[in-house]
Amino acid sequence: MKTILLDHGSGGRASQELIGELFLRYLDNPILHRLEDSAVLESQTGRLAFSTDSYVVDPIFFPGGNIGELAVNGTINDLAMRGANPLCLSLGLILEEGLPVADLEKIIASIAEATKAAGVPVVTGDTKVVPRGKADKIFINTSGIGVVEPDCEITADRAREGDRIILSGSLADHGITILTRRAGLEVTGELKSDTMALHTLVGQLTRELPGAVHTLRDPTRGGLAPSLSEIAAAANLCMVLAEPAIPVRPTVAAACELMGLDPLYLANEGKCVALVAAERADEVLALMRSTREGSEAAIIGQVTAEYPGRVVLKTAIGGERLVEPLSGEPLPRIC
Amino acid sequence: MKTILLDHGSGGRASQELIGELFLRYLDNPILHRLEDSAVLESQTGRLAFSTDSYVVDPIFFPGGNIGELAVNGTINDLAMRGANPLCLSLGLILEEGLPVADLEKIIASIAEATKAAGVPVVTGDTKVVPRGKADKIFINTSGIGVVEPDCEITADRAREGDRIILSGSLADHGITILTRRAGLEVTGELKSDTMALHTLVGQLTRELPGAVHTLRDPTRGGLAPSLSEIAAAANLCMVLAEPAIPVRPTVAAACELMGLDPLYLANEGKCVALVAAERADEVLALMRSTREGSEAAIIGQVTAEYPGRVVLKTAIGGERLVEPLSGEPLPRIC
Repeated sequence: MKTILLDHGSGGRASQELIGELFLRYLDNPILHRLEDSAVLESQTGRLAFSTDSYVVDPIFFPGGNIGELAVNGTINDLAMRGANPLCLSLGLILEEGLPVADLEKIIASIAEATKAAGVPVVTGDTKVVPRGKADKIFINTSGIGVVEPDCEITADRAREGDRIILSGSLADHGITILTRRAGLEVTGELKSDTMALHTLVGQLTRELPGAVHTLRDPTRGGLAPSLSEIAAAANLCMVLAEPAIPVRPTVAAACELMGLDPLYLANEGKCVALVAAERADEVLALMRSTREGSEAAIIGQVTAEYPGRVVLKTAIGGERLVEPLSGEPLPRIC
Repeated sequence: MKTILLDHGSGGRASQELIGELFLRYLDNPILHRLEDSAVLESQTGRLAFSTDSYVVDPIFFPGGNIGELAVNGTINDLAMRGANPLCLSLGLILEEGLPVADLEKIIASIAEATKAAGVPVVTGDTKVVPRGKADKIFINTSGIGVVEPDCEITADRAREGDRIILSGSLADHGITILTRRAGLEVTGELKSDTMALHTLVGQLTRELPGAVHTLRDPTRGGLAPSLSEIAAAANLCMVLAEPAIPVRPTVAAACELMGLDPLYLANEGKCVALVAAERADEVLALMRSTREGSEAAIIGQVTAEYPGRVVLKTAIGGERLVEPLSGEPLPRIC
């Protein structure tokens, strides 16, 4: 097995080989091991969260990670943004004929590592192979199931006037890493993806400070601006950001400047934005900062009734500008 | 909106437009409507089944269906094969830039029809767009959650010596339809895909004849031969098929002959094979035949201890041959 052949997707012997030698070797657990048409989990009680995401990032390997761990962390984070405790993931692979098996193995190993670190196993999977030129190396779909505690309600329309807007760390790391890499740009200083699972951080928040967080989003594709626009629209409120308070690493800021990109519109893969009752903002910030994932958290703005449905940026020199939902530049295959 | 642009996958305004004008228009329901990062379902109690499948079929429209309903029925069937009652689906789309929106709309409309007919809603989704030439029109991932009743145990390793092998209808319709279409062959008589959801049929079996069915598989990609091989391996038993008893439509048989293909190795998308306690086989067969989905069901063989782990075909003239797990011909992009 040196490269992926069409036969690896045919459901026969070669598929079995791939499953045995690669998938089970790295991802094995008692549920996945059965290899039935669907996984059956232990009995659950409670509200279920369910999420899906396909990952088509280009390049598939990038500083700070690869498409595999991105797919694990991304779907875990989508579950966590509803306050859910992630239970398990599915893994759907679409492989291009000719993909080096060594590349696939690196990706599967990194999926295994990410699922182990997160404590969220892959319990069911599927692999398709398409002829050369009909896909680009590898596309990954992960779907996930989580359990939401009865008293936990975290949705966009629970945002309230006065809420503080807290960002869990620096902005735009993932997006600028992918884009500079794709442009072949040499940037001084280290740029790397922030891909990271946030469910532990969110779990601490919901357990230790119940009710404090009204809304959570992970500003992935499109970045912070469209995420906040969506919340503004759902809650019919205005999100006011204080530009100087938004943490952006100097190297990221420099690369954005160089490429003419605004960090508000670049993807993040290990950050969340939380809308928090004003009187509990300091507690939430302190708790976030005490964690590895949120050590650089900052209050970056607040919710007002000024321009309902809009996002406003207050600049360092006292100016104010409306933030559009998108900059107009489509940036494909960021995640 | 005439063709899909990269911007439709960017997470901004164009994405919102696509969601509003196409996805919500056809697929709307209270859970999907929220458009949060993950769907939250009503409280569930019981064992959960979880399954995922990516669909990459070429062509995307074919006699009897299209990639959309295939993706809905396929994942519903994967859940049903564990005896689960399907609750909901996720929908992950990977679109190629330039895909006509009219084609996407046809597919989404057919997904809507299939989910309504099945009573299994799409509750969460994701859309990515990749540049022209980096995918082939559209790939669809559906994942699904189902609930398994406490006393329902349907797995490959529950097959027993003496079990009868029942096929719910005619073999190879989907596979031969795709392959003749792709080869541009004109076949006299009607060939069409059998894509169909089987959860209602399975639900009737598990409710009305509890314990009768030991094992279920839907012989999709690869066909009946590898499905039975997997069961034979898991149960360490021999699957003996009576060739004349296997229902194959005359047009399908003729097309298989023409293309040199064996119907045992061709995909089915609306059929299941059930391993059933011998003394209950007649009841199961009668119940199946009383349904729309199983009206042409037949007992096609039985489970013995003769060649453990193998599948054997007894031919019309009294011969016997070992059936290999796969014919060696990879047939890509059948589903």
